Amino acid sequence: MNVKEIIDKEEELIGQEIELQGWIRNHRKQKDFGFIAFSDGTCFQTLQIVYEKEIKSFEDIQKMHIGSSIAVKGTLVKSPKAEQSVEVQATEILLLGDAGEDYPIQAKHHSREFLREQAYLRPRTNLFQAVFRVRNVAAFAIHTYFQRKGFLYVNTPLITANDGEGAGEMFQVTTLDLDHLPKTKEGQVDFKEDFFGEKVGLTVTGQLEAEAFAHAFKNVYTFGPTFRAENSNTQKHASEFWMIEPEMCFCDLNGLMDIEEEMLKFVVEEVLEKAKDEMAFLNQFVEKGLIDKLQRLVKSPFTRMTHHDVITLLKKADVQWEFPPEYGKDIATEHEKYLTEYFDGPVFVTDWPKEIKAFYMKLNPDGETVAAVDLEVPGAGELMGGSQREENYERLHQRMQELGMKEEGLEWYLNLRKYGGCVHAGFGMGFERLLIYLTGVDNIRDVIPFPRTPGNCLF
Amino acid sequence: MNVKEIIDKEEELIGQEIELQGWIRNHRKQKDFGFIAFSDGTCFQTLQIVYEKEIKSFEDIQKMHIGSSIAVKGTLVKSPKAEQSVEVQATEILLLGDAGEDYPIQAKHHSREFLREQAYLRPRTNLFQAVFRVRNVAAFAIHTYFQRKGFLYVNTPLITANDGEGAGEMFQVTTLDLDHLPKTKEGQVDFKEDFFGEKVGLTVTGQLEAEAFAHAFKNVYTFGPTFRAENSNTQKHASEFWMIEPEMCFCDLNGLMDIEEEMLKFVVEEVLEKAKDEMAFLNQFVEKGLIDKLQRLVKSPFTRMTHHDVITLLKKADVQWEFPPEYGKDIATEHEKYLTEYFDGPVFVTDWPKEIKAFYMKLNPDGETVAAVDLEVPGAGELMGGSQREENYERLHQRMQELGMKEEGLEWYLNLRKYGGCVHAGFGMGFERLLIYLTGVDNIRDVIPFPRTPGNCLF
Repeated sequence: MNVKEIIDKEEELIGQEIELQGWIRNHRKQKDFGFIAFSDGTCFQTLQIVYEKEIKSFEDIQKMHIGSSIAVKGTLVKSPKAEQSVEVQATEILLLGDAGEDYPIQAKHHSREFLREQAYLRPRTNLFQAVFRVRNVAAFAIHTYFQRKGFLYVNTPLITANDGEGAGEMFQVTTLDLDHLPKTKEGQVDFKEDFFGEKVGLTVTGQLEAEAFAHAFKNVYTFGPTFRAENSNTQKHASEFWMIEPEMCFCDLNGLMDIEEEMLKFVVEEVLEKAKDEMAFLNQFVEKGLIDKLQRLVKSPFTRMTHHDVITLLKKADVQWEFPPEYGKDIATEHEKYLTEYFDGPVFVTDWPKEIKAFYMKLNPDGETVAAVDLEVPGAGELMGGSQREENYERLHQRMQELGMKEEGLEWYLNLRKYGGCVHAGFGMGFERLLIYLTGVDNIRDVIPFPRTPGNCLF
Repeated sequence: MNVKEIIDKEEELIGQEIELQGWIRNHRKQKDFGFIAFSDGTCFQTLQIVYEKEIKSFEDIQKMHIGSSIAVKGTLVKSPKAEQSVEVQATEILLLGDAGEDYPIQAKHHSREFLREQAYLRPRTNLFQAVFRVRNVAAFAIHTYFQRKGFLYVNTPLITANDGEGAGEMFQVTTLDLDHLPKTKEGQVDFKEDFFGEKVGLTVTGQLEAEAFAHAFKNVYTFGPTFRAENSNTQKHASEFWMIEPEMCFCDLNGLMDIEEEMLKFVVEEVLEKAKDEMAFLNQFVEKGLIDKLQRLVKSPFTRMTHHDVITLLKKADVQWEFPPEYGKDIATEHEKYLTEYFDGPVFVTDWPKEIKAFYMKLNPDGETVAAVDLEVPGAGELMGGSQREENYERLHQRMQELGMKEEGLEWYLNLRKYGGCVHAGFGMGFERLLIYLTGVDNIRDVIPFPRTPGNCLF
């Protein structure tokens, strides 16, 4: 038996003998009795264990430390307290594994910075119980959404010889002995001697490979780790994070936005439905109004507006901008915020100036903009970025030349346009960005089990 | 509309006008008519498109190449042929994207070696349509199984400073400029200058971090990429592959085997049920008897036998072994084969000599064996490996010292035994090993979208 089963079926189980194994989350001792807040990890809620002086080894039980693992036998009874409906009247409590006096997670406030240093223990706190349960629910909701829609899950490679074409700085991967590097005649490192016979690194995107699979399966998605070697120490950047990258053939920008909107609403609904206790906790202690924010998202129509019209709107606004909006330029965080407030909901900003977007995005007939779309969400900023992909071989080739990109290693990507190419589109969503939005936790380090950031590779 | 919808509801749709977009998989041309085997990637089956001389642009249509993308309008009709139930009588066929004369995937036999070089196009063949659809179904089945059982999905880190403790050779990850490496006073590479401030590599297992999460959530699983920098060019080894690593608290070796068996049977059943066409194809063209093999697995009881008893059994066998079985030693492939044939089903081999197993496995009371288990499956060999984990701090610490392992960087792992430790167990399953078993495809390069092996990092 476990705590989740008890809470799910408490009415039926009242009066029954139960046996549990789990951990002491809190322990309040009185002279003749004691209360243990008991968790076995199967649900967010703890179960109260009450024991009295008559129990065997009363004195030993009173000495049990927070964090210790215990086995409990007892009877499930109605609780006299209002805040909980049932509790366990213990007949036996056995210590399985002590946590000692020096157990770092005590029943008091710990700073998030401290808890990051204890990342292997922090999942035992309410906050991280909530966060990582939401992470689990959201991950499975994403798989469920795409599977129901008939998308094929594809695992794109992580080690790659492509340099990601400017999507971000890459980590290099090697088996060469750095203390004894093989050199070419010219004195350069000889990557022919390396494991793969060439210079390789960790991928910054699975998009290009996902496009290849979309051309066979129509609709595909990736959901896997991605890397950035940027030395940016912000709350929103991690060196290793998870991305969802769907790619769809015979799909244009409007079809893409339909999927983005539908998927996001589905995931939010699943989290609200399947992580009720966790969301109630986060709503109370982390972001006041979190649940309301998410419920409103589900009901909101998503506005669609071109970048040009967005700039016009921003210019007309009676606001003293720190960064004055300009046609042909990117929009700043203050603009994103204004936009989502103005429309009181998420906004798809479409048709961006080609100069500030990636080489593979489809050139619009105006020759100036590309069929790209960023989704701006109230309280989250940019949550997804996508585009139609340029399906015309010559135009893609020309764009690569304009940008001084080398074709080498990307011939196959170009060839997708030569061998049965078609209108297609895709987007990317950083999973942790989504989690920051869903949980209200503001630092990416607190939504990743063991975060990697510049200078930090603990655990 | 798409081909899957048509095949799912063909009875209702006969006589109706339909519109499709997809690719020409084959094209047979007669003087006055033609047949197109049409795929839009939504299901394994192709749909036959029939067009006649009267159609607009008949001559142009006849020139359409295999691999081209097309848009089709027509009427769904009962097919006169026995091997298919419906076909489309086309009223319009438009070329969307030509594939040209030089399209590498023609309607003929291509060797698997050739197709590996065309890994971006091979998903358009029947074989790889089947394999990657099975991969998708199996991946989601694994998530579904663990989610239903209340396991928490946890993403363990890929970049790590732990060296995996002998689980395998590691790739090194760095942002140092290899042509201008910073050096310490002693002339060694100065990893303090590297991105993370220390020497790091790509993980060979997520187990240790998963154990930490199990101590908060009871039951957890990973499903993510793992790496091996071993220079082994075999059919079963890849440098990058996906692993499933469940960890369970308050679970002993028997509980572990229960989960392994139940999970494997669930995944096999899901694949047989949800990838019927794909499995029928693989059964016919790749491994005769594949479906029967899998159906028998689902019905088989899994035998449980200690390593000691297995050796006794092997010694008694009337077989001329290439590698004579010995107490205290590992078992060879020929032994695995004999065992699964002898029991006519899967065999859990338990309680292995500690010398040939990993440091973290729980020492049995005999002081000689550990509570480890390998699952041997007919036609697959070792499919999973697991163990109870040593939950006793002193014994784990001692074992690490015996093996000359340094504690540094693993203090937290040891501490899990100090802070509310408990009986716990876990196993690992290589996802591609499972796919080899499920599909009958014998080379790991053919069940990974873009495989990475020594000397090969294409795409």
